Amino acid sequence: MSTDVVDRRSPDSDRLVRLRRINASAAFNRWCGIEVTEAADGRVVIEMPWRDEAGQYAGFLHAGLIGALIDTACGFAAATMTGDGLLAAHFAVDCLRPAVGERFVAAASVVKPGRMQFFTTCELSAWHGGKPTLVATGATLLTVTSR
Amino acid sequence: MSTDVVDRRSPDSDRLVRLRRINASAAFNRWCGIEVTEAADGRVVIEMPWRDEAGQYAGFLHAGLIGALIDTACGFAAATMTGDGLLAAHFAVDCLRPAVGERFVAAASVVKPGRMQFFTTCELSAWHGGKPTLVATGATLLTVTSR
Amino acid sequence: MSTDVVDRRSPDSDRLVRLRRINASAAFNRWCGIEVTEAADGRVVIEMPWRDEAGQYAGFLHAGLIGALIDTACGFAAATMTGDGLLAAHFAVDCLRPAVGERFVAAASVVKPGRMQFFTTCELSAWHGGKPTLVATGATLLTVTSR
Amino acid sequence: MSTDVVDRRSPDSDRLVRLRRINASAAFNRWCGIEVTEAADGRVVIEMPWRDEAGQYAGFLHAGLIGALIDTACGFAAATMTGDGLLAAHFAVDCLRPAVGERFVAAASVVKPGRMQFFTTCELSAWHGGKPTLVATGATLLTVTSR
Repeated sequence: MSTDVVDRRSPDSDRLVRLRRINASAAFNRWCGIEVTEAADGRVVIEMPWRDEAGQYAGFLHAGLIGALIDTACGFAAATMTGDGLLAAHFAVDCLRPAVGERFVAAASVVKPGRMQFFTTCELSAWHGGKPTLVATGATLLTVTSR
Repeated sequence: MSTDVVDRRSPDSDRLVRLRRINASAAFNRWCGIEVTEAADGRVVIEMPWRDEAGQYAGFLHAGLIGALIDTACGFAAATMTGDGLLAAHFAVDCLRPAVGERFVAAASVVKPGRMQFFTTCELSAWHGGKPTLVATGATLLTVTSR
Repeated sequence: MSTDVVDRRSPDSDRLVRLRRINASAAFNRWCGIEVTEAADGRVVIEMPWRDEAGQYAGFLHAGLIGALIDTACGFAAATMTGDGLLAAHFAVDCLRPAVGERFVAAASVVKPGRMQFFTTCELSAWHGGKPTLVATGATLLTVTSR
Repeated sequence: MSTDVVDRRSPDSDRLVRLRRINASAAFNRWCGIEVTEAADGRVVIEMPWRDEAGQYAGFLHAGLIGALIDTACGFAAATMTGDGLLAAHFAVDCLRPAVGERFVAAASVVKPGRMQFFTTCELSAWHGGKPTLVATGATLLTVTSR
């Protein structure tokens, strides 16, 4: 987004480049159309546009995709703080409201980094008619898999 | 209960027909290729074949799809015990091992039905080379949305 | 804390009085020495002093008491927004660090109130030598039991 | 394996002795009156008698104590499979019914052992008038802390 040389090589810019590469390497993320829009130390924002194949039986965003966005954002938030491999060991999702919108934005952050595990949390908003609504929250516990 | 015709209209057979109709009405379930293979009172088995678009960055089944299978199976297990609408309020997933296989089978059951909410649990196995491996467990709390 | 008449009859002051009455009616809360120190609309702070009987095998605050503080604070946060009965249906706790301190402070807030259920979240800090450390986070889903 | 003396030193008997020692070293477990009644490879049963100080505001067993029993049983189940230190990283509890009884029995088992973490699950029953009722289920993810 920036033509500034220094900015293109800032830590956050490097993080974005790296996360976008990881994101592009995940087939399901590509199918979802997930994009990484922000990355800082321990903090990430991703988004996904609505698509008709993403609906559950009532036409809301499927709970599996709510979980996928939360899991992905949490994993990326942890990845900003380590170069090691990471695997989700546990994730939990609270579905506050039906998830309806043109796009969905997940903002995740690291609650507690560690040598062996990362605790992360995430808020998922549905954007509808230009306005966000918080539709789900979640937490993910990631295990560091290699060193 | 034992003739062909009566058996085809047994309670479990009716449950299968109804769940398959619900399953077919969910666009994301169709994309996943989810099929309902068993249904009894408070108990359901579904399965999904592997597809390349379902992978995370290392090529395992994406945690979002692990959650989708668990959430779907749990919702169907609850649906065998009520004609009311159901929405997942909370779900949690333990990812025990990398989910790798040709197909994935989720077996869910109702732990506690209720007038206002259903507690359900699920085991997800990956079938690889004709053998199942337990790869994830999960629990879902569903709210009854209409009466 | 205040001698001002108006302040004693403010909504938050009324909330405090009511929550302290509920707190005093719970035998385990009395044993723990839990006190309600702040209450606002959808938000509560409680605290508990360390006592020797509260330790697990390594002398840290027992995970059960971490859960008790989170569950209690979340329930009280929901109670500030409804006069109905409430029961915890699900609660989850992330234990970030060993909980060691002279006292423990749990700050809970309502993420989403509802007619049938409340989603709440909580942060638990251990105060040691005058300084707080975040030791656990948690989330509780409460069901409204009467109307 | 069949004489009196050898049997008293069987693996399960050794496990019981070791867990009872750990249990006795935890001050809160002593206050609760928790006893370890069974231990096998990856499986444990503990119980706690009702006491008046254990109640929440309606007189049911406090959710914190429900969590304490589940967390303790899960930790002991993992401890049957490792000599290393263990800490609960995450635990989740589903409160199915009000927990009312003369005593409470928690049966936990290891779902997946590991070098770095253990996934465990637990069922908590309330015994009332000689009959058990399943009142809560839970899952705990434990981290191995030393080697």
